Amino acid sequence: MHKVQFRVRYQETDQMGVVYHSNYFIWFEMGRAELFRDQGFPYRNFEKAGFAVPVKEVNCTYLKPALYDDLLTVETFVAKLTPVRMEFTYNIKRGAELLAQGRTFHAIVDKSGRPCNLKKKAPGLWEKLKAIETSTTKEEK
Amino acid sequence: MHKVQFRVRYQETDQMGVVYHSNYFIWFEMGRAELFRDQGFPYRNFEKAGFAVPVKEVNCTYLKPALYDDLLTVETFVAKLTPVRMEFTYNIKRGAELLAQGRTFHAIVDKSGRPCNLKKKAPGLWEKLKAIETSTTKEEK
Amino acid sequence: MHKVQFRVRYQETDQMGVVYHSNYFIWFEMGRAELFRDQGFPYRNFEKAGFAVPVKEVNCTYLKPALYDDLLTVETFVAKLTPVRMEFTYNIKRGAELLAQGRTFHAIVDKSGRPCNLKKKAPGLWEKLKAIETSTTKEEK
Amino acid sequence: MHKVQFRVRYQETDQMGVVYHSNYFIWFEMGRAELFRDQGFPYRNFEKAGFAVPVKEVNCTYLKPALYDDLLTVETFVAKLTPVRMEFTYNIKRGAELLAQGRTFHAIVDKSGRPCNLKKKAPGLWEKLKAIETSTTKEEK
Repeated sequence: MHKVQFRVRYQETDQMGVVYHSNYFIWFEMGRAELFRDQGFPYRNFEKAGFAVPVKEVNCTYLKPALYDDLLTVETFVAKLTPVRMEFTYNIKRGAELLAQGRTFHAIVDKSGRPCNLKKKAPGLWEKLKAIETSTTKEEK
Repeated sequence: MHKVQFRVRYQETDQMGVVYHSNYFIWFEMGRAELFRDQGFPYRNFEKAGFAVPVKEVNCTYLKPALYDDLLTVETFVAKLTPVRMEFTYNIKRGAELLAQGRTFHAIVDKSGRPCNLKKKAPGLWEKLKAIETSTTKEEK
Repeated sequence: MHKVQFRVRYQETDQMGVVYHSNYFIWFEMGRAELFRDQGFPYRNFEKAGFAVPVKEVNCTYLKPALYDDLLTVETFVAKLTPVRMEFTYNIKRGAELLAQGRTFHAIVDKSGRPCNLKKKAPGLWEKLKAIETSTTKEEK
Repeated sequence: MHKVQFRVRYQETDQMGVVYHSNYFIWFEMGRAELFRDQGFPYRNFEKAGFAVPVKEVNCTYLKPALYDDLLTVETFVAKLTPVRMEFTYNIKRGAELLAQGRTFHAIVDKSGRPCNLKKKAPGLWEKLKAIETSTTKEEK
């Protein structure tokens, strides 16, 4: 599990007085980015190394609204990893209070957009993520 | 079913050269807004009439990337309607080509955020949406 | 002068109940894009032809707030054109009512980011824009 | 002068491979928010206290592009303060490297949108900002 803290920006609110719902996916991406960095593989290096992990499917459930200036945490988990797919789950929290939960599904593709094998393409990253996936799953039990 | 056409904005792209995934939810909202307007109940009137339909859950599946300047269509369907919940489904298309499909789930709440009964609160809108829901379901069969 | 019409999106509002100020620059870009298209040179072709017109400076004055669902018009003018620089001015209007005015300054650069000469690089576009610049200036007098 | 550090988000990039220009104004707002917080008056308290500081005019000059994942700093200065107007200036930096400079002009208004006198409405905040304005001006000399 990985944690990042950030503040809600004024631009992220809407006229209902709460954060507009699509912004949570931007926060999930921040969570993923910091998780990759923590493993020693910042996402900017992926693209330099000739592969990318485009988003294929997402979902989010909104429990309580996030508000302007809230100090939030995004918790990110490697939910499932295969050589050609990644799945992450996320919690958005304000302190101990859970505001939203989401999941994103990613393909692993090369520069021309064709599926590629992460285990072969980046064995170091594969090992690191696989290790986290295992421990995450254990925690969930 | 309701259709709206729009062009992809430069700001909606990211450095992968395609539209950033969270923007599709903004387009879904455009589809909902035009569907409501077509029924004679623009969304801005909802808030004036003392109720709102906040987003409780969303999902989206990305099939092919949308590109800058693409002329896209969002098709919006009333997938399910109860007095206290609404569900919409969406297709994002470039011509006949399906790029993404999504679904949004909404609560119906009053000004203080408590659930309210759409059938009682806005019987005219209820009737209109219920009529579309039925016809949509028939079309899907 | 070129006109484009569009509706304010819910996501563009903030908790003050009006459009967040940075969005006007996204609308200005829409105005520029349609102006280029009208001249027969859609902006997507610029990048294919090996040059770009990055933004070097912008300003905007806000007179009256734009609101959710407003049907707005962006009017775009070629304010000044040299072989290596472009300047555009913009009006954001709700009907006849002027909501904001802005200006953007652009460099003309090649793929490696070095300044390039529009007159040589794209003489057809240069002629078209130069013709509009002149006529615009006359209208302003 | 006040400093805040943040990372560039993937969503903030565009297909030119750099940060889209309108995002800098969102960063300026983050700078203002932290400056107010440092004076003991978080911006969320302004709205609770019955006044707001809407943006009336903005400008920005872009010197070098900000890139995905860059660790940036926004430096914020109180450039000018009168009882009914505020002006801030901003530097966006990557380490010591200056990427952009901007300025925003704000009115001070009450809940009904009418101009109000900050010196009377919030004398504590007025004193604090006035003190910073002076020192900022000295530094600039």
